Amino acid sequence: MTLNEERISSKSISISQALPQFINQCNLPIEPLNSSLLKERGIDLVFLATPNESSHRVIPELLRHNLQVIDLSGAFRLRDIDQYSKWYGFKHLFPSELELSVYGLTEINRLEIKNAQLLANPGCYPTSILLPLIPLHRANLIDYNSTIICDSKSGVSGAGKSPSTATHFSEVTENFNAYKVNQHQHSPEIWQELGNSKVIFTPHLLPINRGILSTIYVKLSDPVDAKDVSDCLNLNYSNESMVRLFKEGTLPQVKYVAHTNFCDIGWEIAGTHLIIVSAIDNLGKGAAGQAVQNMNVMLGLEETLGLI
Amino acid sequence: MTLNEERISSKSISISQALPQFINQCNLPIEPLNSSLLKERGIDLVFLATPNESSHRVIPELLRHNLQVIDLSGAFRLRDIDQYSKWYGFKHLFPSELELSVYGLTEINRLEIKNAQLLANPGCYPTSILLPLIPLHRANLIDYNSTIICDSKSGVSGAGKSPSTATHFSEVTENFNAYKVNQHQHSPEIWQELGNSKVIFTPHLLPINRGILSTIYVKLSDPVDAKDVSDCLNLNYSNESMVRLFKEGTLPQVKYVAHTNFCDIGWEIAGTHLIIVSAIDNLGKGAAGQAVQNMNVMLGLEETLGLI
Amino acid sequence: MTLNEERISSKSISISQALPQFINQCNLPIEPLNSSLLKERGIDLVFLATPNESSHRVIPELLRHNLQVIDLSGAFRLRDIDQYSKWYGFKHLFPSELELSVYGLTEINRLEIKNAQLLANPGCYPTSILLPLIPLHRANLIDYNSTIICDSKSGVSGAGKSPSTATHFSEVTENFNAYKVNQHQHSPEIWQELGNSKVIFTPHLLPINRGILSTIYVKLSDPVDAKDVSDCLNLNYSNESMVRLFKEGTLPQVKYVAHTNFCDIGWEIAGTHLIIVSAIDNLGKGAAGQAVQNMNVMLGLEETLGLI
Amino acid sequence: MTLNEERISSKSISISQALPQFINQCNLPIEPLNSSLLKERGIDLVFLATPNESSHRVIPELLRHNLQVIDLSGAFRLRDIDQYSKWYGFKHLFPSELELSVYGLTEINRLEIKNAQLLANPGCYPTSILLPLIPLHRANLIDYNSTIICDSKSGVSGAGKSPSTATHFSEVTENFNAYKVNQHQHSPEIWQELGNSKVIFTPHLLPINRGILSTIYVKLSDPVDAKDVSDCLNLNYSNESMVRLFKEGTLPQVKYVAHTNFCDIGWEIAGTHLIIVSAIDNLGKGAAGQAVQNMNVMLGLEETLGLI
Repeated sequence: MTLNEERISSKSISISQALPQFINQCNLPIEPLNSSLLKERGIDLVFLATPNESSHRVIPELLRHNLQVIDLSGAFRLRDIDQYSKWYGFKHLFPSELELSVYGLTEINRLEIKNAQLLANPGCYPTSILLPLIPLHRANLIDYNSTIICDSKSGVSGAGKSPSTATHFSEVTENFNAYKVNQHQHSPEIWQELGNSKVIFTPHLLPINRGILSTIYVKLSDPVDAKDVSDCLNLNYSNESMVRLFKEGTLPQVKYVAHTNFCDIGWEIAGTHLIIVSAIDNLGKGAAGQAVQNMNVMLGLEETLGLI
Repeated sequence: MTLNEERISSKSISISQALPQFINQCNLPIEPLNSSLLKERGIDLVFLATPNESSHRVIPELLRHNLQVIDLSGAFRLRDIDQYSKWYGFKHLFPSELELSVYGLTEINRLEIKNAQLLANPGCYPTSILLPLIPLHRANLIDYNSTIICDSKSGVSGAGKSPSTATHFSEVTENFNAYKVNQHQHSPEIWQELGNSKVIFTPHLLPINRGILSTIYVKLSDPVDAKDVSDCLNLNYSNESMVRLFKEGTLPQVKYVAHTNFCDIGWEIAGTHLIIVSAIDNLGKGAAGQAVQNMNVMLGLEETLGLI
Repeated sequence: MTLNEERISSKSISISQALPQFINQCNLPIEPLNSSLLKERGIDLVFLATPNESSHRVIPELLRHNLQVIDLSGAFRLRDIDQYSKWYGFKHLFPSELELSVYGLTEINRLEIKNAQLLANPGCYPTSILLPLIPLHRANLIDYNSTIICDSKSGVSGAGKSPSTATHFSEVTENFNAYKVNQHQHSPEIWQELGNSKVIFTPHLLPINRGILSTIYVKLSDPVDAKDVSDCLNLNYSNESMVRLFKEGTLPQVKYVAHTNFCDIGWEIAGTHLIIVSAIDNLGKGAAGQAVQNMNVMLGLEETLGLI
Repeated sequence: MTLNEERISSKSISISQALPQFINQCNLPIEPLNSSLLKERGIDLVFLATPNESSHRVIPELLRHNLQVIDLSGAFRLRDIDQYSKWYGFKHLFPSELELSVYGLTEINRLEIKNAQLLANPGCYPTSILLPLIPLHRANLIDYNSTIICDSKSGVSGAGKSPSTATHFSEVTENFNAYKVNQHQHSPEIWQELGNSKVIFTPHLLPINRGILSTIYVKLSDPVDAKDVSDCLNLNYSNESMVRLFKEGTLPQVKYVAHTNFCDIGWEIAGTHLIIVSAIDNLGKGAAGQAVQNMNVMLGLEETLGLI
């Protein structure tokens, strides 16, 4: 397994040298990626937490060496190859690998994930939006002519480790703002997986480290009521260990899911509309946690291994 | 002028004793309110930053002594006297005083404010929502059959000074949550002043001290475009010193308005919808700042005196 | 086992009802303490996370029922029974139970802890101060005529769950202050366990939830040098799994220990003085973590069980 | 006047374009510095908020054009020209300009400041440390053989605007750490102005934007008591508008001075030692505020103009 290339500034440092919180706990060396040696060293599966273009470049090579790959970037999430220039700023060159890619929203695509060689781990925002919306949409509880509003708020770790003015503590503390309104690269991922492009997605930056809370507004089909919503969500998720349904009257909070792999879902009816509040840890279910959950499925292990 | 009764725990302490940041700066005594003595002491106008029920009880007495009153509570904001039991939890007993009350959204009601004896200073959330929406609504740019979504986020000072579990630092830091979804007492105030009850209002608690950012989603009337929106907002606000319009492409942030009396307004078009982002300091334009602005209007002073 | 009595407002609620983050994870009922029934129910050991006076009152009864007790309050930490009135504000009535009490700084008192029936779990601040100082003091590396300065900084969770003005988010965020200078109830605990009362202890409140960092200044005995300090700490802690020694040049940070049971220790020589920086999670090694570590020792379990 | 060169990325932008919080408030253009044109344009005095080496290079030229200069960098603070290589990493080339330089701790050096052509505005940490210590030291209240401990904590804005890993929000929030222990470039400035190098200075990084709190430990001369300390501080500061003395029992907090130009000083006696707590806003009295205060003195204006 390899770490983000950006972290590697010297050949020979260990994880505990790069990240002192792991002192005495993890001294594995950080090494440059060498695809051809991985199999020899007994490695079956590779996690990529690399920038989009690095993943795009490296994955075909890893697949050629018969490695399974879980990619945490967006490089293999969009099925329409022409969308990459617009949303990710690079031309995608690997259509056949793209066809292999399975979108790793575990609870929704578990069967395909079991047999995936290349898994595109979902974006953090889409995970928080798609888990509540997909069952409601598939059950036709949402008015198809209306626009779905997804007002999402994320902690700063969602922006990655690279320092920038936008992530400078003095810019973030005691602040809050919307950004990339209607232009975030997670929009097409939401439209694609929901099968509905009448979705407005507005990301905001919270002055916290980790966590996403999405407030989602949908017009219900007539005559859907609270029981229908409740039944639909229960049918899909009451047996899922990583999705926790809140009863009407209590709502998820970021602190309930921070440092976990849970997706918490709550909701309220407001006249003709349903207000959904979902929460995840963007580094947990929104990234590394879901990646591990997917690895467990891909390797036939207990799905929650290492997660609860 | 009087301070919040909650702060008065002892007869003889001064402001700098209660709030050491005012040491050497303000040693005025904190005294119990005595309505009948205020006129004798040369006071013309009283600010009330008291709980709803305290304001409700005290104001008729102050008015009888011919004092002008600016009330920062909600006790005289709703014109329909029957609404108080539901939204504020007490029965309103003063219908004639309620009729005198002027809703103090300065830029919208300036003429009535000039002659007000009793001014109901607007709620913090409604200020951030009504300033952008009222001109657009009056100009018929908003589709009247659609539901307006107001997704608002506020700093903790909006919850007042009283300690509670919800405002405990450990509950708030690194957290974020929605609360009183569809049940907040500011909802009827928004409906009343907008003249439209098809508004869903969802407040959220931000881990910051001061500031509100509201993200507002409206369906535009056909065939309204960006220029119509821009023209309407410019017509209403380009000469206002306390409302700042952002050009498409830049959006307000909480830090731009913290410690000021500004309301910043920005927006983006998303297909058939308009996304508005507005920001105020909930303690500035959302409370004390707007109260001072209203006092200036009521007393015929320069409107921005003490504010810029 | 029982929870803090303050949390119990109703007989029949479960942990997940009181603390929604445990939804689906822990539904154990919260019940009033009934000492006489605990043994019958198969319970051997009780954790008390109760106020000082509650622990003081309840512990004799628990001991009478032959239960082992780990008390997270200060009620049985000071061996001199006359000190309680001054530092804890109540007269201590149980001298014989007090004599049974073992001070639970695991790495220092492991042998006594193995056989303890009543364990006084150390205070959070003292843990961060005593772990680095005791070995240096016992090895006579510290100039005995000088004053030791302990400048400690703690997150807000150290102040407990009860809401107060001092823990209101708006008072804490973007703030920092010293408090109880020279008057904190942890001072006599430090003096007693170190066997030296020439220690000045100044606690400060950090705008974070969890974590303590103590910066400790000691004058070294002549001619102690860096190697002596290093050797002494290594001798005592290089085989300890819960104490992590940092090499000169790197220093502990709160984030390295948050959500762990580690005590991290780093240091620099400054001429005649040694500057020690130690860090713990006040809820981990400073409270619940060390309590579990002590339980493991008392019950003969693997010491790090449930902790790494 | 000129802004930090780092901010200038393009010739023609205005302050409100670079910093949207100044929209409608300040549209002055940001221009490259041209020393020879400043006098023609009627400018008498220049503030430099530039990196140390930029100030070092630019100041001789400004002085040649007969401009008064207030330099917020450290380039002209140390009188011993040989110290710059060690502490600031560059060789100082302008000994005659350095001789002109006046250290701008306003309350201490007011007379020299009145006639300064080149003013070296003090560092933020030294301001918080020197204001309380200088009067006590000059009055011989401090034991001259003992070591003075300055344990200082600063908000992140003290580290400047440039993004770095150390100022990334995710590194700072919920964290706290010491840095540059015994190696900070403000140490020689403290030693020089105090006239005593037996001072240990330990800076720490607080998870707040602005503010410094210094906890200072000094051994008192025998037989100094509380009244001596109080008298000395009162004698020096009771008539100063920008230094606020706290009575024993109350202590300064960062929030009392944030967004002000005050230096607040409180203290407690602990046996043979005096514990001083001082607080400033590192951007106020610690930088821009004190710079304006010094400008007022240099230009013969009311000293608090623009500051209260």
